[in-house]
Amino acid sequence: MDFEKEFRIKPSESVSLKKRETKTKGPFEDKADAVAATEKNIATIQELQYRMYVEAKQSLLIVLQAPDAAGKDGVIRKVLGKMNPQGCRTYPFKVPSSVELAHDFLWRIHSCTPARGKVAIFNRSHYEDVLVVRVQNLVPESVWRPRYEIINDFERNLAANGTRILKFYLHISPEEQLERFRKRLENPAKHWKLNPGDYEARSQWDDVRRAYEDAFERCSTKYAPWYVIPADHKWFRDAAISSIVAKTLSEMDPKFPPVDVDLDEIRRLYDLAKDAQKI
Amino acid sequence: MDFEKEFRIKPSESVSLKKRETKTKGPFEDKADAVAATEKNIATIQELQYRMYVEAKQSLLIVLQAPDAAGKDGVIRKVLGKMNPQGCRTYPFKVPSSVELAHDFLWRIHSCTPARGKVAIFNRSHYEDVLVVRVQNLVPESVWRPRYEIINDFERNLAANGTRILKFYLHISPEEQLERFRKRLENPAKHWKLNPGDYEARSQWDDVRRAYEDAFERCSTKYAPWYVIPADHKWFRDAAISSIVAKTLSEMDPKFPPVDVDLDEIRRLYDLAKDAQKI
Repeated sequence: MDFEKEFRIKPSESVSLKKRETKTKGPFEDKADAVAATEKNIATIQELQYRMYVEAKQSLLIVLQAPDAAGKDGVIRKVLGKMNPQGCRTYPFKVPSSVELAHDFLWRIHSCTPARGKVAIFNRSHYEDVLVVRVQNLVPESVWRPRYEIINDFERNLAANGTRILKFYLHISPEEQLERFRKRLENPAKHWKLNPGDYEARSQWDDVRRAYEDAFERCSTKYAPWYVIPADHKWFRDAAISSIVAKTLSEMDPKFPPVDVDLDEIRRLYDLAKDAQKI
Repeated sequence: MDFEKEFRIKPSESVSLKKRETKTKGPFEDKADAVAATEKNIATIQELQYRMYVEAKQSLLIVLQAPDAAGKDGVIRKVLGKMNPQGCRTYPFKVPSSVELAHDFLWRIHSCTPARGKVAIFNRSHYEDVLVVRVQNLVPESVWRPRYEIINDFERNLAANGTRILKFYLHISPEEQLERFRKRLENPAKHWKLNPGDYEARSQWDDVRRAYEDAFERCSTKYAPWYVIPADHKWFRDAAISSIVAKTLSEMDPKFPPVDVDLDEIRRLYDLAKDAQKI
């Protein structure tokens, strides 16, 4: 199964989240089968991330958006966080601070985009400004409506500068979400995650879903595609995302740069040091 | 073996790096034995880091300093980088930029210190300003000499605000360093790391060693101790550092905060949602 092709939203494609599956096993026999595939993908990602870091020409931006409990933290801990932290950073975008609100909505985002050779992972992102901001009427429509184009322009600029962009939506069913809420209630170590607001969000779900669908339809571009990943099975979610990241890095094909030091000179210095040590 | 006690520099202790061992097996039979201990320590670190993140009261700052090829990158990749990236960031401090140089030497450092609940790992640090800066006469002695006290004051401020500070020096022998340089020469994937300057640094080693010793004697405090870790065996280095980090986190004893939501209310909301789903 070509996960990249299967779950990518084509530019201007009409999107109905209700019609897209949340629970699939894909090509996998069972969980163990998917976990093995994920491990293999992670090894590929680690190798290619190292090359990208040394090459220092291209960068990778991974955006994660999802309803509560859909598994953003899990994907970071179990898949994306396996990258070498020297070349990879995670940025959570929470409620904006007063300083952030005093600027345009992309200001805090732009300061976190990855430098050449680096990976950035956004846990939530600038898309909140056309999602929660829209649904909760935090700004008037005349403000949020133009943001789809502003986002496309922004992402085009990043892409033109050598940044590959992957945007993942973790798609879980309301039933699976409720089941995860139940597990949180039963596990005291997860009680800090409990929030009455989670249930309020469920009652707004129709509006949120429409906002997501609009974002996917308007902002899934050739240079910054959206992927809607079935996420009811955590192991399928991890396998699909790791596969798409590994495939993308393979396409980017980072290479060790030509060595710009004189190897003979280094060998001479080494021999001198070796001789000096013997004395 | 209590690594924490064994390798800590006591305040005002006189330090001779030549007299401190670089190659020890400590309590370990062999490499496999040490690797098993490291794995156990990492599991402890992961559990306690999660608690610290949720608690959001204390923070941890880990400083790494070492000669070239001593293994800073390896420690980050194999030990410290196993922490959850959502609560842990690595900061490399390279040659300062022109903007950084236009400020005091702690300006760029302070902007990277860990927030409550977080861990920061410094790959090199403010200590470069009393090491390379001193040895290469980048500023006059009247500028670098007062920095030991300035650093102590700075670190005391961080500690007073709930930041635990661990400073590790990876101590390798010149022979082991040269051996690692040889391995780099033989491995094309490592050629990007080759630098004639590495050999120049070896010729300055007596000066650099004295600068390190001064930093350890003056800046190993109760609230921000230096540890000199024997690093000729990578597996010993990893076991010792992971042990000290695990012990420190245990002492910090982070706790899940009391749940400030009304559990009965959450249960009621859950039941309502469950009922609604059945309809």
